[in-house]
Amino acid sequence: MGGKILPEGTMILENPVYIRGKGSAVGQEEAKGPLSDYFDIKADNAKWGEKSFEFAEKKFFMSACKKAVEDAGLSLNDIDLLLGGDLLNQIITASYSARDLGLPFLGLYGACSGMAQALATGSMLIDGGFGNNILCAASSHYATAERQFRSPLELGTPKPPTGQDTVTGAGATVISSEKGNNKVVIRALTIGRCVDFGITDANNMGAAMAPSAVQSILTHLQNRGKNPLDYDAVFTGDLGMFGSKLMIDLAQKCGVDLSEVHHDCGSMIYEGMKSKRCGASGCGCCAVVLNGYILRQLEQGNYRRILFTATGAMMSTTSVQQGESIPGIAHVIEMERV
Amino acid sequence: MGGKILPEGTMILENPVYIRGKGSAVGQEEAKGPLSDYFDIKADNAKWGEKSFEFAEKKFFMSACKKAVEDAGLSLNDIDLLLGGDLLNQIITASYSARDLGLPFLGLYGACSGMAQALATGSMLIDGGFGNNILCAASSHYATAERQFRSPLELGTPKPPTGQDTVTGAGATVISSEKGNNKVVIRALTIGRCVDFGITDANNMGAAMAPSAVQSILTHLQNRGKNPLDYDAVFTGDLGMFGSKLMIDLAQKCGVDLSEVHHDCGSMIYEGMKSKRCGASGCGCCAVVLNGYILRQLEQGNYRRILFTATGAMMSTTSVQQGESIPGIAHVIEMERV
Repeated sequence: MGGKILPEGTMILENPVYIRGKGSAVGQEEAKGPLSDYFDIKADNAKWGEKSFEFAEKKFFMSACKKAVEDAGLSLNDIDLLLGGDLLNQIITASYSARDLGLPFLGLYGACSGMAQALATGSMLIDGGFGNNILCAASSHYATAERQFRSPLELGTPKPPTGQDTVTGAGATVISSEKGNNKVVIRALTIGRCVDFGITDANNMGAAMAPSAVQSILTHLQNRGKNPLDYDAVFTGDLGMFGSKLMIDLAQKCGVDLSEVHHDCGSMIYEGMKSKRCGASGCGCCAVVLNGYILRQLEQGNYRRILFTATGAMMSTTSVQQGESIPGIAHVIEMERV
Repeated sequence: MGGKILPEGTMILENPVYIRGKGSAVGQEEAKGPLSDYFDIKADNAKWGEKSFEFAEKKFFMSACKKAVEDAGLSLNDIDLLLGGDLLNQIITASYSARDLGLPFLGLYGACSGMAQALATGSMLIDGGFGNNILCAASSHYATAERQFRSPLELGTPKPPTGQDTVTGAGATVISSEKGNNKVVIRALTIGRCVDFGITDANNMGAAMAPSAVQSILTHLQNRGKNPLDYDAVFTGDLGMFGSKLMIDLAQKCGVDLSEVHHDCGSMIYEGMKSKRCGASGCGCCAVVLNGYILRQLEQGNYRRILFTATGAMMSTTSVQQGESIPGIAHVIEMERV
């Protein structure tokens, strides 16, 4: 037997699971942002030479995966399993990538929590002995998400004040049972529940996801017996400007001050860009910030211990049209420099 | 460390994982079929008192889950994790059920392979020590699937000769680390790859999925050092009449004769019903046949050892419209009476 389960979804790994390789591929807007230098691959436009935005999203996913495997010093033959997801109906980006990569595949859907869900599942499988090297990946694309969830870009529909921009990009991580020269480990994680505060506005995802972030982070802290300041940073995936403020306020009401350590990938990636004032969203957002920026900071020793929390809004256009509210879910990954 | 990974996705569990509880809920058509007596809950119509077919699908999912937990002699508080999926965009059936059940949740998408994917993932997590009791579930609904993937029923579009009927129903299994009085165990499994033979007809899913079933079953047999006749039955999820024939032929060409032991849940559930000559499809199909019929046969000692293989077609309307072919995926679960 490997790990240990604590109440409310927190899991302690018996053996550390190592971060062995990372890859990130982003679109041209993300490449204009403040984290540009950290991304491995930058596309010059949203179609990236493909015949549709959906084919382009697959190219981002595949590029990030191949880069992560290369960065791990491995070839695809060394990968035991691919765990991945995206936002598109029937997760076609991940599925068709899995076909083209030729790997045993478990498809995940956790909306924008995809990257953390893949890392959580993969870490438990490695700790349980079901793989030496597992590839975890997630992607999103502004144009494919807009036309699926809201309006096709061609219509020029104005964005409401709380509307975040879906990141075009993909991130991938190779996690491993082998220590080697690897400097970052996953030690514990918390699997979230679907939390619903009754938000029905599909243009205000941050508000729908903030309560789930609070619940999962506070559960993780309590089960681990830690305070926020025991971590150098607590990252959320893509709450954006409004959602981040809501989350801090909500945690405060529960008696926990996250304001000193909290950073939101969705706010970081477009910081200072006037056209994107609400920040970013999408599976790809925290996937590229993790594999571009955060893991490098850990490797270089700028962080010692962090929480990476990706949040997802578990709705569809059909569920919203039928009057359902939008539940959020958040999974927490605890990472440490060794 | 728990399990052991063999090449090509086959996993051997260190400790047997027990089937502790099962539940099945079906629609009125399935209740007219030959397996009717085996199903726990039967709805009198497709809306089952709900305001939409999608809400009804959630009721099937929740009903099967609650029945499985009750059958396991447990309450929801005893369940460590819910693993589930369905066919709807953004797996809204599973996600909203997860919200209403209040359990830590990992959402899966493997198209009609959902039930096997959930059991595969759950078994590895239990063997790794990450849960004592995990609830695995999958569902589908004829009316929600038709309007999402093909045409709304109201249009009365005729079904082409290879078109299978999506099962209305949900199945759920509680798997457990505890022996108790449980009589059926999972010992090994194979996680599939996406296999693509270039089928582009969304009305011929059986043909799209047959190659993946052959690949995963033959991989499992080879890695386990077994012949088809070492099993009392080899079940596939929902290849239907045409897909089943294709699978047997394809396996024959690879030198393996599956004809003596093969049964297809999609053919069994509607057998003898004149209006459904091609058989069934949908996540719910093999989920209800497993939790209704197959597990009872194992418990009663009518089978000693079986393979349960659920296949999925990993496409969306968008991918087909953009000219992509339809990859299939199949996961294999080996079950035994103890």
